[in-house]
Amino acid sequence: MDVAIVGASMTEFGEREGWLVDLLAAAGAACLDDAPLGPDAVEHCYVANMAGGEFEGRTGVMNALVQELGLIGAYTQRIDQTSASGGAGIHAAWQSVASGASDCTLLVGGEKMTHRSTPESSDIIASLTHPAEYKHGVTLPSFAGLTARLYLEQTDATREHLAAVAVKNHRNAVDNPDAQFHEEITTEDVLDAPTVADPLGLYDFCPVTDGAAALLFVPESVAEAVTDDYVTVAGVGGATDTHVVHQREDPTRLSAVAESAETALEQAGHGIEDVDVAELHDMVTLLEPLQLEALGVTDPGEGWRPAVEGTTARDGAFPVNPSGGLKAKGHPLGASGVAQVYELVAQLRGEAGPRQVPSDVALATSIGGFGNCVTTTVLEGAR
Amino acid sequence: MDVAIVGASMTEFGEREGWLVDLLAAAGAACLDDAPLGPDAVEHCYVANMAGGEFEGRTGVMNALVQELGLIGAYTQRIDQTSASGGAGIHAAWQSVASGASDCTLLVGGEKMTHRSTPESSDIIASLTHPAEYKHGVTLPSFAGLTARLYLEQTDATREHLAAVAVKNHRNAVDNPDAQFHEEITTEDVLDAPTVADPLGLYDFCPVTDGAAALLFVPESVAEAVTDDYVTVAGVGGATDTHVVHQREDPTRLSAVAESAETALEQAGHGIEDVDVAELHDMVTLLEPLQLEALGVTDPGEGWRPAVEGTTARDGAFPVNPSGGLKAKGHPLGASGVAQVYELVAQLRGEAGPRQVPSDVALATSIGGFGNCVTTTVLEGAR
Repeated sequence: MDVAIVGASMTEFGEREGWLVDLLAAAGAACLDDAPLGPDAVEHCYVANMAGGEFEGRTGVMNALVQELGLIGAYTQRIDQTSASGGAGIHAAWQSVASGASDCTLLVGGEKMTHRSTPESSDIIASLTHPAEYKHGVTLPSFAGLTARLYLEQTDATREHLAAVAVKNHRNAVDNPDAQFHEEITTEDVLDAPTVADPLGLYDFCPVTDGAAALLFVPESVAEAVTDDYVTVAGVGGATDTHVVHQREDPTRLSAVAESAETALEQAGHGIEDVDVAELHDMVTLLEPLQLEALGVTDPGEGWRPAVEGTTARDGAFPVNPSGGLKAKGHPLGASGVAQVYELVAQLRGEAGPRQVPSDVALATSIGGFGNCVTTTVLEGAR
Repeated sequence: MDVAIVGASMTEFGEREGWLVDLLAAAGAACLDDAPLGPDAVEHCYVANMAGGEFEGRTGVMNALVQELGLIGAYTQRIDQTSASGGAGIHAAWQSVASGASDCTLLVGGEKMTHRSTPESSDIIASLTHPAEYKHGVTLPSFAGLTARLYLEQTDATREHLAAVAVKNHRNAVDNPDAQFHEEITTEDVLDAPTVADPLGLYDFCPVTDGAAALLFVPESVAEAVTDDYVTVAGVGGATDTHVVHQREDPTRLSAVAESAETALEQAGHGIEDVDVAELHDMVTLLEPLQLEALGVTDPGEGWRPAVEGTTARDGAFPVNPSGGLKAKGHPLGASGVAQVYELVAQLRGEAGPRQVPSDVALATSIGGFGNCVTTTVLEGAR
């Protein structure tokens, strides 16, 4: 069964007050306001969230959300795929409609993180990597630094080239009122920032963020009946790589990005050359070039060029992260994959304002860990 | 698409050594050993688990499991629906196959709990209820006690009558080598046990348990091709009730059990009278009678009679919890819903040994919180 998205929303990302469930409820209510269907239509209500219990000491948020939104009766579950929880939520929501289990599924992704200290939230995030690595200090930022070092050795890329990703995505976020940051940065800002994991510094990494985003999924036949302003989920794919990252032959090759995209694009009947705009999981600058390589947008070792040459700018041939990306929009873990698709829905509807990119086909990747598990979603504008 | 189960396993329940992922891997490997399909066939691998991060300080267990089982490439996610995580996992695994997203999904449910002190694990479990209630001490055992008090006032049931559920389920567990407890208890044992939440005592409640269970889902067309010993998932339903339990008009009415069962039975084309054997979520004795009423097995207020009269005994007209139930088999949160279906698969295959009940149609309910969210699964033996 073909599945469509008929509603989309996101909260402002940044430091937010309240509980996770308050953010989820705000995004969920805004999504239902945006949609041509109301709360009564919702049969399933899914929450994408990595670690609400760890961040807040509160579990069962999906049950709380159902009550908060006045959806009692609607079936609910929480989906966790670490930092790719949002993408996994999309996979699950798509399945719920495609399987016939639900004719209307509300997906709300969110995370509340900023109320914890940096060491506390770092501990929670580090716990998603394998104990064989994180117990020895090899956390996600460390992986990023080690892999960046390898990438700079193996390719013609320099620190300046990687910095171009941060500069571009911060530039894009200036036009995104919901982004955490709204100031342009320069290459020098990136290079002069405090080192986080050599050779990468503070501006190479996404911030710690609170926020939520939501999407409403229905069968395409329902979408056709209620609106002419919907987006089709043309393909969804998911794949894993080793959980122990150092066991990979080459950590600069994101095989789960390649495999999940192959599945999603094949289902959509598209090649990567058909994609007009993409939101890629730029938890760290390095991941954007690595994904461009895994997706086949560039040859291996050449993924750093598009940001440098302007190809991935909003007016480039393959715009990437027009929203500002995780890098500048912020990265509330469970929200990010959902917010990527919120951005792409806005793009495909032609409602992205100053961020608008001409687009009929769009793609998003949501990455768990350092490519440990990835979902890719391909969207099309209403036909 | 019709969905079948072609492999099933559970670990011993009780106090177990190791990490959660070790239990999950043991159950997953045993399930693949049981199935006529090997690891290469697995496309999706889902983990049902409520609170691995809270119990162990370790997240990302689904990614660890994929590597542990040699399934790298297979897509994975974790599903949390509090104490109904196992049932929610079944709903999700069914969707993955029914939607065409996966032609072979391994579901592994598990929880590792006993390494934490009772106050610690009670805190984690209490966090699934609404803060408006648990912050004031109204935790799940408290709800059970308050609701039992109401039930004893409203009906002809007595404490002795509720105790009959515990006596029956402990009796059944004697014949289950994987159960946590293997000793019969008497009505006097139940009545003389220390009070947990008046009027209920220690033997009215399930224990704290470590364990895991697994199931392998494929399209029925695949099952037919590889084995004549499969079970069909004839129907799956899910529903919610208020998350704030005290806002319900009558807490003895489990509306989410009724609604989810209606969905599952309708999909299966069965009435409750067609069901030959059931595994019901007996976290506390009281829940078994309340579910018999919600399912329409008895009239409201009469659900206590079957255990007293022997109707729900293994040789009764409507056998309930032949495995020993959560009460005596144990209740590792994320495993329980999966282990219920493991038991029913054994029953439908005629492989339940001394626990065997003649059966063609079976039903399981998995309850989150105090009926906050419920899944019901209806199974049929191979046709």
